[in-house]
Amino acid sequence: MQTSVQALRFSTVLEVLDQRLLPWEERWVVIRFAAEAVEAIQQLAVRGAPAIGLVAAYALALEARNNPQLEHLQRWGEKLASARPTAVNLPKAVASMVNVAARFPSQERAEKMLQKARSLHQEDAQACLTMASMGAELLKGSNLAVLTHCNAGALATGGVGTALGVVRGLHAQGRLSRLFACETRPVLQGARLTAWEAHKDGIPVTILVEGATGSLLASGKIGAVVVGADRIAADGWVANKVGTYPLACLAHRHGVPFLVVAPTSTIDFSCSTGSEIPIEMRSSEEVTSLFYPAPVGVEAYNPAFDLTPPELISALVCEQGLIAPVAKHTLAKVRA
Amino acid sequence: MQTSVQALRFSTVLEVLDQRLLPWEERWVVIRFAAEAVEAIQQLAVRGAPAIGLVAAYALALEARNNPQLEHLQRWGEKLASARPTAVNLPKAVASMVNVAARFPSQERAEKMLQKARSLHQEDAQACLTMASMGAELLKGSNLAVLTHCNAGALATGGVGTALGVVRGLHAQGRLSRLFACETRPVLQGARLTAWEAHKDGIPVTILVEGATGSLLASGKIGAVVVGADRIAADGWVANKVGTYPLACLAHRHGVPFLVVAPTSTIDFSCSTGSEIPIEMRSSEEVTSLFYPAPVGVEAYNPAFDLTPPELISALVCEQGLIAPVAKHTLAKVRA
Repeated sequence: MQTSVQALRFSTVLEVLDQRLLPWEERWVVIRFAAEAVEAIQQLAVRGAPAIGLVAAYALALEARNNPQLEHLQRWGEKLASARPTAVNLPKAVASMVNVAARFPSQERAEKMLQKARSLHQEDAQACLTMASMGAELLKGSNLAVLTHCNAGALATGGVGTALGVVRGLHAQGRLSRLFACETRPVLQGARLTAWEAHKDGIPVTILVEGATGSLLASGKIGAVVVGADRIAADGWVANKVGTYPLACLAHRHGVPFLVVAPTSTIDFSCSTGSEIPIEMRSSEEVTSLFYPAPVGVEAYNPAFDLTPPELISALVCEQGLIAPVAKHTLAKVRA
Repeated sequence: MQTSVQALRFSTVLEVLDQRLLPWEERWVVIRFAAEAVEAIQQLAVRGAPAIGLVAAYALALEARNNPQLEHLQRWGEKLASARPTAVNLPKAVASMVNVAARFPSQERAEKMLQKARSLHQEDAQACLTMASMGAELLKGSNLAVLTHCNAGALATGGVGTALGVVRGLHAQGRLSRLFACETRPVLQGARLTAWEAHKDGIPVTILVEGATGSLLASGKIGAVVVGADRIAADGWVANKVGTYPLACLAHRHGVPFLVVAPTSTIDFSCSTGSEIPIEMRSSEEVTSLFYPAPVGVEAYNPAFDLTPPELISALVCEQGLIAPVAKHTLAKVRA
């Protein structure tokens, strides 16, 4: 299983594929300083929970070249960790990098931190492959149509993706009939990114507006709904791109398996339940002026994520194994 | 209760406010021939089940001025009735107009048909007022936030609207805290039309992407979901703008009243159940190129309507009274 798509690459500097411009233009943004990474993450040049964690990790390593003082790196670590609030992979990756910095003298820091960033990247790529195999094995039958939301693909991770890794697994086995991708308003991660990355890799893909998911699931044509996650609370509530929860309700009503695919780094045991997960509210303008101008004077309610309760989730696929049912006691085993 | 908004007006010719250009430009399209009405309906210059029925009625009356032959009017009646397939108000209005044409000699037809069109228009305006009062009375309490989908307002009817009539009723009584309007992809009837018409009439309005409805309903802030309908089957299944069914699922899960507001002309007793209602499939391009270009080669699944089962509907508000529960036996009473 492989992909021709990458969200980030590192040689002597870090580069991220500017996802604001996709699918219309493939432009790589160079990152040499932590400040540039903060901006790239906040402005959505790079997004996706695992991917922004990796970008923060590489950026801190690069910052250590500029200034290896521990306090300096800690300060930038805090800024990177809080660049966006919901994905827990971001503060976790930063904590891991600051920990490496603290263990080595300043003259070795830049190199050791870069080694760590590369290792986090490799681990994420491997986790994607493991989850892809497990998820594809879990879904039985041939000629499966899969519905996904947002982009949990190569563009969101350091590998073949989480949800889209499973889709790639099914496709590689010749068992995928078609991927349906919600366009994912307001930023259109589905229509712009998932459709682009699937099409590029030869996976048959159809987009649909979120409103049409009820009609599609009621048609009986969908074999599984597969999504990623930005943070999972200890009791199994899942924060993911806004629109995930309505999909889970519909899948449940129609008896369609609803899989969440996410590395264990996405689980945050410090959040006992979903309501403790900070949900990022983004600007009204992202809805009212990004792709069309709404009437002057009208504002938008624009949360970037929503919360899906564990009882609506058929299984959580993470690289340590399958978790089903999704609940506090089953999640606790992953921690151990 | 009143509104400053009109979808159509008649003096010596028919004019419709071009809803494709709203909210950016208020341009009236003149209709003198049935062919122009067919085009205006198909191209969505005018939309909304009651409104397109009225436009078809006026257009046939105008066509009788051009050529009062019964066969000619029947032929144009068929073209108008099938201009869009889902709203039943369209063939019903046409049948009513052709019936008038058949009862009068050709030299009287144009005048009698115009009288009939005006009378249908007045009846629709009166039905809107009646439904608005009943719906507002049904919803108890003050400081109510109401969520709606698409546009079931003055722009969709010959009066104050169906769902938005109820909202106007609550607002007139000082009991509306805020209207939340789903933007309603792909044509944005919520963000462009509902937001514009509410804002114009001084009703506080906030838009949101369809994906954010789960988060909004889970917040407990919404007192009722109120929508219109394009066709209602004899057993209570409701065809309405795609995205209505997911909203009904969410409202049901969170115990939020889900009202369908529609004149009795929307009920089609010849459809015994929802699966007999023809659902219009619109072009892929409406999703992939109207407001942003999707990746080249990627197509969209684009049904214009979906079906909501009666068990998810708290009540149907029509001008003949409240129907609850919504079921075959309760709907049958309206017919009598």
